Amino acid sequence: MLDALQNRIRLPALKDRITSAESAAQWIHDGMTVGMSGFTRAGDAKEVPLALAERALSQQLKITLMTGASLGDNVDKTLTEAGVLARRMPFQSDPVLRAAINRGEVMYIDQHLSETVEMLRTRQIAPIDVAIIEAIAITESGAIIPTSSIGNSASFAILADKVIVEINMTQSLELEGLHDIFIPKHRPHREPVPLMYPSDRIGTTAIEIPPEKIVAIVITDKRDSSSTILPPDSETAAIAGHLVEFFKEEVRLGRLTNSLMPMQAGIGTIANAVMNGFIDSPFEHLQMYSEVLQDSTFDLFDAGKLDFASGSSITLSAQKGKEVFGNIGKYKDRLILRPQEISNHPEVIRRLGIIAINTALEADIYGNVNSTHVLGTHMMNGIGGSGDFARNAYLSIFATKSIAKGGKISSIVPMVSHVDHNEHDVDIIVTEIGLADLRGLAPIERARVIINQCVAEPYRQMLRDYVTEAQQRGGHTPHILEKAFEWHTRFRETGTMLLS
Amino acid sequence: MLDALQNRIRLPALKDRITSAESAAQWIHDGMTVGMSGFTRAGDAKEVPLALAERALSQQLKITLMTGASLGDNVDKTLTEAGVLARRMPFQSDPVLRAAINRGEVMYIDQHLSETVEMLRTRQIAPIDVAIIEAIAITESGAIIPTSSIGNSASFAILADKVIVEINMTQSLELEGLHDIFIPKHRPHREPVPLMYPSDRIGTTAIEIPPEKIVAIVITDKRDSSSTILPPDSETAAIAGHLVEFFKEEVRLGRLTNSLMPMQAGIGTIANAVMNGFIDSPFEHLQMYSEVLQDSTFDLFDAGKLDFASGSSITLSAQKGKEVFGNIGKYKDRLILRPQEISNHPEVIRRLGIIAINTALEADIYGNVNSTHVLGTHMMNGIGGSGDFARNAYLSIFATKSIAKGGKISSIVPMVSHVDHNEHDVDIIVTEIGLADLRGLAPIERARVIINQCVAEPYRQMLRDYVTEAQQRGGHTPHILEKAFEWHTRFRETGTMLLS
Repeated sequence: MLDALQNRIRLPALKDRITSAESAAQWIHDGMTVGMSGFTRAGDAKEVPLALAERALSQQLKITLMTGASLGDNVDKTLTEAGVLARRMPFQSDPVLRAAINRGEVMYIDQHLSETVEMLRTRQIAPIDVAIIEAIAITESGAIIPTSSIGNSASFAILADKVIVEINMTQSLELEGLHDIFIPKHRPHREPVPLMYPSDRIGTTAIEIPPEKIVAIVITDKRDSSSTILPPDSETAAIAGHLVEFFKEEVRLGRLTNSLMPMQAGIGTIANAVMNGFIDSPFEHLQMYSEVLQDSTFDLFDAGKLDFASGSSITLSAQKGKEVFGNIGKYKDRLILRPQEISNHPEVIRRLGIIAINTALEADIYGNVNSTHVLGTHMMNGIGGSGDFARNAYLSIFATKSIAKGGKISSIVPMVSHVDHNEHDVDIIVTEIGLADLRGLAPIERARVIINQCVAEPYRQMLRDYVTEAQQRGGHTPHILEKAFEWHTRFRETGTMLLS
Repeated sequence: MLDALQNRIRLPALKDRITSAESAAQWIHDGMTVGMSGFTRAGDAKEVPLALAERALSQQLKITLMTGASLGDNVDKTLTEAGVLARRMPFQSDPVLRAAINRGEVMYIDQHLSETVEMLRTRQIAPIDVAIIEAIAITESGAIIPTSSIGNSASFAILADKVIVEINMTQSLELEGLHDIFIPKHRPHREPVPLMYPSDRIGTTAIEIPPEKIVAIVITDKRDSSSTILPPDSETAAIAGHLVEFFKEEVRLGRLTNSLMPMQAGIGTIANAVMNGFIDSPFEHLQMYSEVLQDSTFDLFDAGKLDFASGSSITLSAQKGKEVFGNIGKYKDRLILRPQEISNHPEVIRRLGIIAINTALEADIYGNVNSTHVLGTHMMNGIGGSGDFARNAYLSIFATKSIAKGGKISSIVPMVSHVDHNEHDVDIIVTEIGLADLRGLAPIERARVIINQCVAEPYRQMLRDYVTEAQQRGGHTPHILEKAFEWHTRFRETGTMLLS
């Protein structure tokens, strides 16, 4: 064990900080704010939070937990069940935590993923007392080398009073060199982020902190939870097909070249399937400047389509995880992981001219998108990075299947029940039915294109009827406010948006 | 006349392009896209558009008109009445045009003000055929020196096939040197915008184009329309007072220094009044990095509070206009005008750490803001630059009076009828009643703070009742969808949001 640790804890003075998860968890007290590694199930701290939950069974222990984004299978769940979470930010995707949030038991602050550490740095939210960071190793100078994600880990470690490191022995030491840690300076006298290409390295390969801040080191051996994406189906393949045709036309019109622009793809089945669609396409020398790198990123590498991918985490299915992490050297010179503040930075997104592809829970006839709230009230996961990208992208695309629950729900409704992305930030809506190009269109024109291109019957006719009736009242954006949510309330009462 | 023109048209070869407005307007044909100078009533082309409207009375003539933002008193009005406007973007504030938009007669594309020229440059919207740019002069090399605004003029002139220049003899030649024209390069290989301080000069003082593109020069002598802002009243003074107290507390907490951060203030009476509130405050060495510079900017200069102001236009009341433009030398070394793409650039806004102060038409209990749509359907003006700033600012503030129409309208409602800025982009809501600091709060906490701090009775109790009822249904963001717009529909039907 100690031999194996030789390469993992390279600053000898830190070896006496090795301790159990239970003992490390003692650094965390009731009322504290804890910053933890983890972004889209990758690179999360895996043992100390469970020890914390265990302790909470016998004593009052409530914390504010900040992470990069979502955590693996058990962490948010166990912490929720133990009642540890008073407040949680900026993203989650755990069913047990979600239910607690929707019962009003956990105060959840759903944030643009680039913004959390800006608010911490300027002390606009409560400071981090303890950071818990998963690492492959600690360097000779005490710097922390992250694992399969960076997320907010670097700023958490830098801003925290105390740092607990989980050294995960299942995370390959070959990940060293993959990370690029760049932390913007305090404002107002900040310099530009010196990043002009997705492949630019602008920082260090480890998180540099005073080693004396590391109060505990816990050795762990649990793998990252695998991604939960489903394989492509006929609808997601159709969505991908519509997008490939759209991009072909953009190339034909001279607006794009065959290598398009750097691409971002949101997390989940649909975005992954869309990216897979580029395998059988005429496009090449593609680049990604994204948050989470999913299976499709490596499929595109293997297909020779993708030149470079920059992200904040790598989250893969079990099978793909074995292939990639077992052979990371094959990909390493074409990959960079960055802090989410940089992967999602408005400055960089606008400069690079990103094509942003995100998923809508529902969209409306004018192109507003709900990414988060079921029936306008119940949180699903969170806005994540979609707002960082959609506002500042070259092209902002939202994809969704046109129906859900076997047709009982239309994903295109008269008015979305919650707005995460408004008409100004949505250039393209695509469903398996077709693609609506909304650029340069007024609201009423957007409605016609969305209804014609993206909606199947009988919802298509129902939406046309709504618009016709609404137009009788006039207005730039015609609506009948007393009927705008009729589809949602009908679903709530009858279990379907369809008229009986 | 020709003597006076010596300094106005310094490239002799261009003198034979001097012509009448009617003759210049002949370059514009039915179906064209015209890009015109003008931002918040300042620096708009004043004669050629009127000649165009005159011509449209006797022949078919419909165009797409793009500007920087709103125009002066007669231009949009006259063009609308003559039926010239088929499409209009990205902003307007004219009552006659507004009515035509709301009747569905003019297709209006309401855009984030930083984005229009990005879309033009990448040919995602129809290209500019003819640009009409107001200038104080044309240089020896044929470069155009703008007047009291820049807006989108530089990119319009660069991207247009043909350029018509209106030399406005009432605009002082002393404005020369005020402008800083920087145009970002094509993507994806764009460099950072090299701007680190509001006072940084990064471009040229005139718009450089091939002089042969200038097909006509029209000499004009109409002044800019004066701003329509109202003087501060007791409510706007109270709003300003709450903000000053808030900033004092931020300084006390060590989050800000006495010079705060560079400030943006939206157009209009409330934002102007808020900025005036800094005259009698302990803050000093303030800086502005804004869009429109209003009366308050110069009041702050005169009070010795403001060190520097960067904007895209100067729009003043009649009296203040005389003082400032009659004595521009007094202010010139503390002022820069920039293209709106730069004044509103996400990269620069995030880097400088802007305090953004914008106006809400209505806000809801969760902190979503409607800036544009009356009763969710009828366009007022447009989103303008508020989205560029609110998303990327250090601190995003929205101000509104708590009631309108003598109390028949509450500006704080259960759910806004249109979302321009969602909960993620709204840090502070302030009314004359008080200030709600929403940073780091979950939705239900936001609701409590907004209702307690910003709303007067009887609306306060009505909102509490709504929340109580909504909470019985659960959810992260409690709502009763069938009642969410009841206040709006009641107002529509009875003329008041109050219960009878």
